[in-house]
Amino acid sequence: MITVTILGAGNVAFHLYKAFKNAKDVTVKQWYNRTYSDISSYANEVDTIDDLSKLEDADIYIMAVSDDSIASLSRALPFENRLVAHTSGSVSIHDLDKKNQRAVFYPLQTFSKDAELNFSEIPICIEVTEKANLQFMKDLADALGCSAYKINTEQRQTLHLSAVFINNFTNQLYRIAHEISDAKSINFDILKPLIMETARKVQDMSPYMAQTGPAKRNDKKTIKRHLKQIESEEHKAIYELLTASIKKTHNYR
Amino acid sequence: MITVTILGAGNVAFHLYKAFKNAKDVTVKQWYNRTYSDISSYANEVDTIDDLSKLEDADIYIMAVSDDSIASLSRALPFENRLVAHTSGSVSIHDLDKKNQRAVFYPLQTFSKDAELNFSEIPICIEVTEKANLQFMKDLADALGCSAYKINTEQRQTLHLSAVFINNFTNQLYRIAHEISDAKSINFDILKPLIMETARKVQDMSPYMAQTGPAKRNDKKTIKRHLKQIESEEHKAIYELLTASIKKTHNYR
Repeated sequence: MITVTILGAGNVAFHLYKAFKNAKDVTVKQWYNRTYSDISSYANEVDTIDDLSKLEDADIYIMAVSDDSIASLSRALPFENRLVAHTSGSVSIHDLDKKNQRAVFYPLQTFSKDAELNFSEIPICIEVTEKANLQFMKDLADALGCSAYKINTEQRQTLHLSAVFINNFTNQLYRIAHEISDAKSINFDILKPLIMETARKVQDMSPYMAQTGPAKRNDKKTIKRHLKQIESEEHKAIYELLTASIKKTHNYR
Repeated sequence: MITVTILGAGNVAFHLYKAFKNAKDVTVKQWYNRTYSDISSYANEVDTIDDLSKLEDADIYIMAVSDDSIASLSRALPFENRLVAHTSGSVSIHDLDKKNQRAVFYPLQTFSKDAELNFSEIPICIEVTEKANLQFMKDLADALGCSAYKINTEQRQTLHLSAVFINNFTNQLYRIAHEISDAKSINFDILKPLIMETARKVQDMSPYMAQTGPAKRNDKKTIKRHLKQIESEEHKAIYELLTASIKKTHNYR
């Protein structure tokens, strides 16, 4: 049985808590948060605390806190030589205080408090300072049914950047399509199957191979008509930049 | 039983043929293509022709041909007052020769010849010049198990533009993430669940509500670090423009 103590109460902390709680080979030993009221409603199912001095022994302490709090919280931990991990995509493993054994447990996914999530489909990026802890970290991911990938800090920061393109920027393109279609009283539902299929297609085909459309074909007539249709200068700039990017990828200049 | 004749042999034509062929209330009467060899392998299951004068009676003639060929092919049809539809997202219904009754049957989805597609999940955008044909067009979509939406030409052109943002541009963001992660020897598979979840999230939440990340939070430190990480000037420009767009949407300037 693996014992885990969670620190923090953001989206990742909540999802991790639920996932560990449901994992049969894991016990959540304690849940710490500076602001007690954020976790108090869980007091009947786990030992909830707001005082670091009350932290008991656990196989791993997982800090799911904001990037800026990781270094200071790791310094404030009142013990040494135990295993401490953070869950951030962008913070170096060396930002953790070296009085403890250090690790990273970064679940690469978008977390919202409301959205239900099948945790077992989330890839976990793992890093350790002590090689001996690598297998333990893999076992921990495995206990959640997740695939684990050994990823160093530089790669992890690159993944975090890639995730901004894939999640935040993609979502903004959805938003722009929503604005454009709303302006003509079009039900956004019509576009939802296309959103799904666009994502599904690259699960077993490279994005390069999956590309279609006027930019890929260098269809100047359609591109010109689209630019005439777009009312917002901002949307026009995005259309032009991404069209140029597709053309460059597919060798039109 | 509805009889359908298909004209053309592009991706949409192939997928439509397969979908109509499998629909129990539809018979594919004939399949016409100017270049016979493109459809000759279907000769044993449907009447394949390359001569317009051989076209027989059908309830509807669906032209799934390139945008530029629609007007000329509709003029070349050797009959009058029958129901003729095109499948384009951007061509006006009035580009069809008015000697026939005109309609549009636009399946809003991305089509690749190789990718298997569940046709019943595709929204069909319908337009007619004769109101009496509206129900027939709906029945035709229904025969494929598809949802039908009455969409006029201007709305359809807006949908086509929106689809470029949602499909082509989103796919290019996947491509950029692929390039960025490849450069650090990262397995692209790690990013695939995030691609799916990003799409899934907006199936029951607006893109506005679904947004997360550094631009949404106006997290200048992370944005600055990301810009430093990006090696290509082109990717940097895209990062900056989409970050500014998200900030604008969420009221940071």
